[in-house]
Amino acid sequence: MDVLVPFAAERPKTRLESVLDGEERVAFARAMLVDVLAAVDGTGRSPTVLATAPVDVDHPVTVDDRPLTPAVNQRLGDATAVLMADLALATPAAVDRLFAPDAGVVLAPGLGGGTNALVTRHPEFRVDYHGASYRDHRRNADRVGATVATVDSFRLAVDVDERTDLTEVLLHGDGSARDWLVDAGFELAQTDGRVDVTRAAR
Amino acid sequence: MDVLVPFAAERPKTRLESVLDGEERVAFARAMLVDVLAAVDGTGRSPTVLATAPVDVDHPVTVDDRPLTPAVNQRLGDATAVLMADLALATPAAVDRLFAPDAGVVLAPGLGGGTNALVTRHPEFRVDYHGASYRDHRRNADRVGATVATVDSFRLAVDVDERTDLTEVLLHGDGSARDWLVDAGFELAQTDGRVDVTRAAR
Repeated sequence: MDVLVPFAAERPKTRLESVLDGEERVAFARAMLVDVLAAVDGTGRSPTVLATAPVDVDHPVTVDDRPLTPAVNQRLGDATAVLMADLALATPAAVDRLFAPDAGVVLAPGLGGGTNALVTRHPEFRVDYHGASYRDHRRNADRVGATVATVDSFRLAVDVDERTDLTEVLLHGDGSARDWLVDAGFELAQTDGRVDVTRAAR
Repeated sequence: MDVLVPFAAERPKTRLESVLDGEERVAFARAMLVDVLAAVDGTGRSPTVLATAPVDVDHPVTVDDRPLTPAVNQRLGDATAVLMADLALATPAAVDRLFAPDAGVVLAPGLGGGTNALVTRHPEFRVDYHGASYRDHRRNADRVGATVATVDSFRLAVDVDERTDLTEVLLHGDGSARDWLVDAGFELAQTDGRVDVTRAAR
């Protein structure tokens, strides 16, 4: 099965601009990509990066500068998996769960209505990553008559887009993205509610 | 195995005060409690509500007005499960996963460092729900020599404390908490990032 990892190589992670400058966002996004690729490697599968511009990683890279949805749809084969590049908590065990259900379409929901990972085995299924894509993907699967299964995974549900997501990486990550944050001075900060992050002055 | 569901019967869900008034927060918290109890029922287990004040539900209720940590610790027996009352996405399948690992302590992490559900089979393990409890519970388990397993579940990771969590209930819930939100006029609202909620004028 083809395993695609789409990656926005230019101006990634704009919603982290309150805590990371432009160069840092590029470096942190790449660290997360490396972690996702390692998690896929750990399942015995071979991922391909589908990037908007060339990126230097130890895996095959296909460049397509179109938006995510058409770039992915053009490459959906008989059996294809698509994992977002910002799943910094992904582990081989979590990724493996995506391949377990015997369904036409398997969806791993992300926080806030996204689809962080999916498998399609149905030739007519198409993705649409705009907006509440989880709901749209369920609908698209129903429309083409594909059976749907979901994967109930915290590690696949956390895509790292916002400041609060950095907390999860510090708490539960164990790869290069977590190392990058620690090296950059991030640490956990207690609050009355959920744990936050702070950054030490350099 | 005893299954405890702690419930703050008075002034619950204060971090939802920007979107729900006091009476609404009480009603919504109770709807979530009912969903959690139903999810535990669905596994064939019998939950007990551990409430800070009497609450009218179709399950046994034990009242203890102390803070969460001492109230739970006093009731940890040889084998005890503790599930938070605000896990509005909990399903029998998700709850069952808590009982599967053969470990002294099983932890289901919550967003932001919490511990949304746990099983302890070790007589010396104690809870500490203050702050980043997930980390503390791992440490407490290590200290008493208990093996630790974690449950990688999105449905158990989402405790409903903040406005953004309502999005998850609308998208993935199918019980009384979701019905309550829909009846109260909440609906999904598209944004540039994660899906948000809006509330219709009454």
